[in-house]
Amino acid sequence: MSVPKSKKIEVSLEQLRKVFTANEHPKSTLRKIDQAITENLHGFLGDTIVTSDYSLEKIEGQLKDFQIPNEPILVSEQSDFLLKNIVKNSVHTAAPSFVGHMTSSIPYFMLPISRLMIALNQNLVKIETSKAFTPLEKQVIAMIHHLIYNKENSYYKNHMHSPLRALGLMCSGGTVANITALWVARNKLLTPKENFDGVERDGILQGCQAHGFKDLVIIGSELAHYSISKCAGVLGIGRKNIKKIPCGRDGKMLIPFLKESIEECKKQNLGIIGVVGLAGATEIGSVDNLTEISEICQENKIHFHVDAAWGGPTMFSKKHAKQLAGIELADSVTIDCHKQLYTPMGAGICLFKDPADSHEIRTTANYIIREGSRDLGKFSLEGSRPGMAILIHSALKILGHKGYEMLIDHGIELTKFFAQKINESEDFEVISNPQLNIMTYRWLPKKLRHYKGKKKVPTEHHEALNRITIAIQKRQRDHGKSFVSRTTLNYGELQNTTVFRVVLANPLTTKEILSNILKEQRKLGKQIMDA
Amino acid sequence: MSVPKSKKIEVSLEQLRKVFTANEHPKSTLRKIDQAITENLHGFLGDTIVTSDYSLEKIEGQLKDFQIPNEPILVSEQSDFLLKNIVKNSVHTAAPSFVGHMTSSIPYFMLPISRLMIALNQNLVKIETSKAFTPLEKQVIAMIHHLIYNKENSYYKNHMHSPLRALGLMCSGGTVANITALWVARNKLLTPKENFDGVERDGILQGCQAHGFKDLVIIGSELAHYSISKCAGVLGIGRKNIKKIPCGRDGKMLIPFLKESIEECKKQNLGIIGVVGLAGATEIGSVDNLTEISEICQENKIHFHVDAAWGGPTMFSKKHAKQLAGIELADSVTIDCHKQLYTPMGAGICLFKDPADSHEIRTTANYIIREGSRDLGKFSLEGSRPGMAILIHSALKILGHKGYEMLIDHGIELTKFFAQKINESEDFEVISNPQLNIMTYRWLPKKLRHYKGKKKVPTEHHEALNRITIAIQKRQRDHGKSFVSRTTLNYGELQNTTVFRVVLANPLTTKEILSNILKEQRKLGKQIMDA
Repeated sequence: MSVPKSKKIEVSLEQLRKVFTANEHPKSTLRKIDQAITENLHGFLGDTIVTSDYSLEKIEGQLKDFQIPNEPILVSEQSDFLLKNIVKNSVHTAAPSFVGHMTSSIPYFMLPISRLMIALNQNLVKIETSKAFTPLEKQVIAMIHHLIYNKENSYYKNHMHSPLRALGLMCSGGTVANITALWVARNKLLTPKENFDGVERDGILQGCQAHGFKDLVIIGSELAHYSISKCAGVLGIGRKNIKKIPCGRDGKMLIPFLKESIEECKKQNLGIIGVVGLAGATEIGSVDNLTEISEICQENKIHFHVDAAWGGPTMFSKKHAKQLAGIELADSVTIDCHKQLYTPMGAGICLFKDPADSHEIRTTANYIIREGSRDLGKFSLEGSRPGMAILIHSALKILGHKGYEMLIDHGIELTKFFAQKINESEDFEVISNPQLNIMTYRWLPKKLRHYKGKKKVPTEHHEALNRITIAIQKRQRDHGKSFVSRTTLNYGELQNTTVFRVVLANPLTTKEILSNILKEQRKLGKQIMDA
Repeated sequence: MSVPKSKKIEVSLEQLRKVFTANEHPKSTLRKIDQAITENLHGFLGDTIVTSDYSLEKIEGQLKDFQIPNEPILVSEQSDFLLKNIVKNSVHTAAPSFVGHMTSSIPYFMLPISRLMIALNQNLVKIETSKAFTPLEKQVIAMIHHLIYNKENSYYKNHMHSPLRALGLMCSGGTVANITALWVARNKLLTPKENFDGVERDGILQGCQAHGFKDLVIIGSELAHYSISKCAGVLGIGRKNIKKIPCGRDGKMLIPFLKESIEECKKQNLGIIGVVGLAGATEIGSVDNLTEISEICQENKIHFHVDAAWGGPTMFSKKHAKQLAGIELADSVTIDCHKQLYTPMGAGICLFKDPADSHEIRTTANYIIREGSRDLGKFSLEGSRPGMAILIHSALKILGHKGYEMLIDHGIELTKFFAQKINESEDFEVISNPQLNIMTYRWLPKKLRHYKGKKKVPTEHHEALNRITIAIQKRQRDHGKSFVSRTTLNYGELQNTTVFRVVLANPLTTKEILSNILKEQRKLGKQIMDA
């Protein structure tokens, strides 16, 4: 179905008003364009090609005007342009063979319900522009809080809709959630005392002076997401002041090193903002020993934050939730809804064990978010925010706990299947064993099989393996039929080790698709070796 | 049209896969539900009621489950629930009589194009999950940059698609844009020097020591948005370290006080992060003398940031752009697209005069946002981000410069009309004259008319006027037919002055609607006086 041509917009107030008015007539041109876009979209999404081979440079060439056109163009002209140039050259992140990043197909009902969200255009910063969406968001946060913390009924009854505090804060994504958590942690450490009003009001310089700290640090796994580095930067702590704790071969923080680091910081009089543990490291999917870390933090009165942006929803699974044991002891937890809750971009949540923690970052103003109001903007880093809660609410209800459990179990099972297939192969080697549904592996051809699982591979061979793994990944990506990502691992004994990385959360991904991906990689690897 | 009943989802992988697959058949139940939602939505948006009179407490009562249901519910059941309980009790922010906050109706084409955005679900953090959307976003930023800075052609040709630097950064909204700007400014002030790697890497404590500052401050108008306070908090500067410059009766920063403050800070050895000027103060719409402020900042080598979240698009207007003269001299500018560019929530932009400024906050990682890549995540505060650029691009093209100009001119004209109407009335008084399209006024009945425009109103009367203004605003809001916001002004000679506040940017708002709003307020005022 091609996009029907709309009429030229004369620039008059009357015409503009028509553009701003919902057109209810099913035969109106705008409704027809709407339908045409839906049709074409389905055509695009039905395709299994991950991305077109049209080069980025060529696309840039089509997007080089920097002046806003003086005359309006037709809706149909713009729709045509978007379908032909942008949609066609996007990445089909929902494709079942796109297994390289944390994307997936999303449930179909997200489309009509997103339309509700966009059309209602609520602003969650304040009740006056959101009304029912505010308690809806609070309910969603309570539901996810319950999934992670599983507190008693009275806890939720008391806090869920309270205007005084928040069980958690919704934001645009995991990075802002991590910033929020460590912002709270920083403010709790540099708390008010005599002649000091707290770091939020008086700043870091006075805070360190008042508390007698030589400097501030964040302690976290060497596998922590790069956003932790951003947090240290933006919060005024400094990226170099992250104490990175080495991990074992399994990607878990080594507890003795953590203890040592805490002792060393105390000895040096460094204020510890918090310890960041991982529930699903971005690169390899590993989960830290959360219970042990939490005990150490409690002993030392340190804020314990868990970055569960990826792994949090594993809590749905009876079988696998135990990997996250101890997460309920964390002071704060980051969850990304646009990852394994399968909502569209961008929705993250920062949960608090103690809802009073939200007070650490409270703001009020005269015209909104007044004292005592239910306005969500009182506690959030962001101001105006969309009603993403309606999408999360719908997903939680329509898929249900059982549906999510099945999705989680399927992803982990598929990852284990793929790891086994690689272990049985003659030209690949698993580098990080799947704990959740992320796994890394690399090229290891027949003649170098004797290095399989070995710590030390002679530099010359090691570099050749890196090179070929990179070349295979690039060629496969450029073919555009499937996508596996790559990274270079540097943790524990692994240094400078380039690997393929798969993230298996798309329910449409099958064992057959994975087998074909490996087959193509094998073919490419042989071509590269022969060249 | 009622929502057709969908079939129960059996929790099986096969069923789940169906839910995750776009259903192309026009007669499928999901497509029918989609249509029903669209119909009902139009019904809602066609309504002129601003919000239902259903109480928040009652809505909370319907949203009290904190457990994610075990069994999935039907798509139709959820859709029904949302339409009856959430949509019906939302705020009709697009209503032409909703003139209290910075919301408006949005162009109808936002709905089909949002569907493209949601379905494609690109992640702008990296090329590998966004491809064509990355240059599209860069083009949008260049277009808005050109609107504000109007640099020469070669500037845009060199920088627009450069992988090395950014003309600006897109983010979830004005607050994050302001944080980004002041984050850059902080890092530029506490720049690397001998034995100091810069504040981003070494933190604020070492930064102040290395640069010999006694503390850090941000200087800004006393009318600055409350997000500037958040910025000072989150960036580690401290909310108390904002030097608030008094404004005149017109809401413009008083230049002598600004100069004095800078001198005082220098004398006290306080590091000045930046000066924040306003182009459209949230409360009253005033615009600072940007040229003068910029000259002072240049003389003193201070970063000059302009918060034009609201007022930026005034640049479209030949008639009114002059009010913003000097904005092109600012080092950074905040623009909100979900305000006067009429896109849905949430899209903001932080623009840089010098694209090299983006380097101050650069991050890289091994698996994405590698050195030299075009990945937008290298510079942004946020990580994963949606493809909002497609909506802004479409609006800029379909409305065109001319269309936006007409919208801006209409809003300002309407505001002037309303101010005049109030000035001619016998029971209201304009408090802040419209500069852009925001205006404040208050109740001032006949027997107190002799205080019109007077600086000093006896406390007893002043408080009575505040009380009645609040009561009128609340009653009108609760009637739900129109919405005017209220705030309490504290700037210049105005202290503790409660006012009605109107923001007139919705092209569907007419003079007649405004006259009716005033009529209702007059009636309510008399009722309250008589009671």
